[in-house]
Amino acid sequence: MVVMSEGRRLKVALDAFGSDRRPDPEVEAALLAAKDGLALELVGDRAVLDAKLAERGSDRAGLEIVHAPSQISMDASAARAVRAQPDASLCVAVDRLAAREVDAVVSAGNSGALLAAALLRLGRCVGLDRPAIATSLPRADQLDDPAGRTVLLDAGANVECKVLNLVQFAVVGAAYSRIEYGVARPRVAVLANGRESVKGTALTRGAHGILSGHPSDSFEFVGYVEPNELFSARCDVAVTDGWTGNVALKLAEGAMAAWPRMLRAALAEIGSKAPDTEGEAAIAAAIDAGLQLVARHLDPEAHGGAPLLGVDGAVMICHGAAGPRAILNAVIAARRFAERGLTEAIGDALEDHTELFELARKLP
Amino acid sequence: MVVMSEGRRLKVALDAFGSDRRPDPEVEAALLAAKDGLALELVGDRAVLDAKLAERGSDRAGLEIVHAPSQISMDASAARAVRAQPDASLCVAVDRLAAREVDAVVSAGNSGALLAAALLRLGRCVGLDRPAIATSLPRADQLDDPAGRTVLLDAGANVECKVLNLVQFAVVGAAYSRIEYGVARPRVAVLANGRESVKGTALTRGAHGILSGHPSDSFEFVGYVEPNELFSARCDVAVTDGWTGNVALKLAEGAMAAWPRMLRAALAEIGSKAPDTEGEAAIAAAIDAGLQLVARHLDPEAHGGAPLLGVDGAVMICHGAAGPRAILNAVIAARRFAERGLTEAIGDALEDHTELFELARKLP
Repeated sequence: MVVMSEGRRLKVALDAFGSDRRPDPEVEAALLAAKDGLALELVGDRAVLDAKLAERGSDRAGLEIVHAPSQISMDASAARAVRAQPDASLCVAVDRLAAREVDAVVSAGNSGALLAAALLRLGRCVGLDRPAIATSLPRADQLDDPAGRTVLLDAGANVECKVLNLVQFAVVGAAYSRIEYGVARPRVAVLANGRESVKGTALTRGAHGILSGHPSDSFEFVGYVEPNELFSARCDVAVTDGWTGNVALKLAEGAMAAWPRMLRAALAEIGSKAPDTEGEAAIAAAIDAGLQLVARHLDPEAHGGAPLLGVDGAVMICHGAAGPRAILNAVIAARRFAERGLTEAIGDALEDHTELFELARKLP
Repeated sequence: MVVMSEGRRLKVALDAFGSDRRPDPEVEAALLAAKDGLALELVGDRAVLDAKLAERGSDRAGLEIVHAPSQISMDASAARAVRAQPDASLCVAVDRLAAREVDAVVSAGNSGALLAAALLRLGRCVGLDRPAIATSLPRADQLDDPAGRTVLLDAGANVECKVLNLVQFAVVGAAYSRIEYGVARPRVAVLANGRESVKGTALTRGAHGILSGHPSDSFEFVGYVEPNELFSARCDVAVTDGWTGNVALKLAEGAMAAWPRMLRAALAEIGSKAPDTEGEAAIAAAIDAGLQLVARHLDPEAHGGAPLLGVDGAVMICHGAAGPRAILNAVIAARRFAERGLTEAIGDALEDHTELFELARKLP
């Protein structure tokens, strides 16, 4: 278990060569973090990073660089790349956490490679078979409430899952909801294509059977949740396999991005029929403000990337398209992850549910 | 094969006891259809329907009733219910099509039961293993174009699928895109969690391999499509298993419904800070108009329900929550389905691709 060094400020290692536009967004985020007094080290090619920082001519505010000469590409085969390139920025960043030189890691790189590196270098929490990526969806009626979000996992770490994995995701997700959103006894559901327990697949029915038959003190199992209910307060945690979770996440992103474009098109159509220039401008301005506000609430990156739950340390994944603000928010979230002892809380929760896992292990 | 009787107007059988609020939305839809001169028969309990129609006191406009004394509930086990209740409204409606007394069937009832009844009473198109439910998603930049929609199938008929099913969905979906939306050579994609062919599951990779290795004259295979791309013009047809398709559809519905609520909340927040009552009212009115316009374009029911593709006859499924307008639109779509010979076109397309299916049949 990664233990915080006493008397030292919490420090985050940021993979400087993860994002699609690397390393610019990372450098920018690091400077913003340093300005805010956050302890951070930038991991990547020292010459490039030094040049980038010199270019900016700004105060480096004590920003450290840890040298890592190579980079893992977005389309590389994850496990192979991690083994072949131990000196890649992503691997070195994870090494820093494994060596307890830092307290958390953030990368906007190849998420499969980050998972592989974390498994190889940090290992899993005791008793867990598969870590999961957790994402948080906004709720339509709780936009203003930072805690009013539904945790969905696995959002893509494990394309194929067994009943045991889903049951463990329930336990791990509940610990995350408790620590991150302050929900004392999270309501956990299994994502399915209907509310009735006969719905779903062999996988979901297996998980439903185990979770409904063996109540836990630390979370309340509320049965199946349908995909359209994820944007409401019907449950705090929804568990699914990484294939379905990834489809759900990307579809939500697509729908959320399509909507404002549709509204603008519709308003342009209306506007063209009622040519009142002044009124139109006011309406357009108000809608822009509204759209921006909604976008701010919706932006998954504003909430600090997606944590990789169940590896032995605080690891946060950013979107490849992440910009400086998104990466900065992920750094802040990763720091909070370490500060609040999420890894330890997950370890404890796993230990409390070993009997449940033994039952689940008997199912396919 | 269901053949249109010559010299007779196309007629639709409407299950009067399908929807959640049955039979009121169905009766209302039937009256609207009759007023529009559409030939339609209402299938259900004659006494109840007569009373409903008498209550309305309106001109029945030649509306026929076909008696069916019982009903299948929404949560009934589909196959069992269809066998146990041959006199249920849903079964009798399908019987009318099997007997060629009508040219198409519409039901807002239990979709599993409708599928089971169609399989049992109409059978499948020759050469097809599994029929699929097709749904159409709007594209952000083509709201005004009725043909600018992406066909997604299977949206829920087959929770578990083999490679053969996905390959057949590609052929069937392309035929639908051609007939319904006039796309001469539809671009077909397999839904996956990334664009690269190494992504996905054994199922998607199997379908990708078959479709990319054996080009068809009637459609263009364009590889994988990601869920967030479904709201764009990246492909005309996206194929997936019924589990994933159902999750995608319900998630899209949920996200699309959540968005306007989020915008209203955001605007209320902005409005409360700038209390200009008159301007606010104008803005609210414009946004309402815009939202309504978007909703009209988005509403899956406005586009006439979801066709069940690959059974031997025109069968259209409505949402259980469907109202009169949605059901009327489904009746119009079902009529068009029969008129344009969609079933025959699907049969021809299947016959043209038997070699492809033989290859796919060797994969799991």
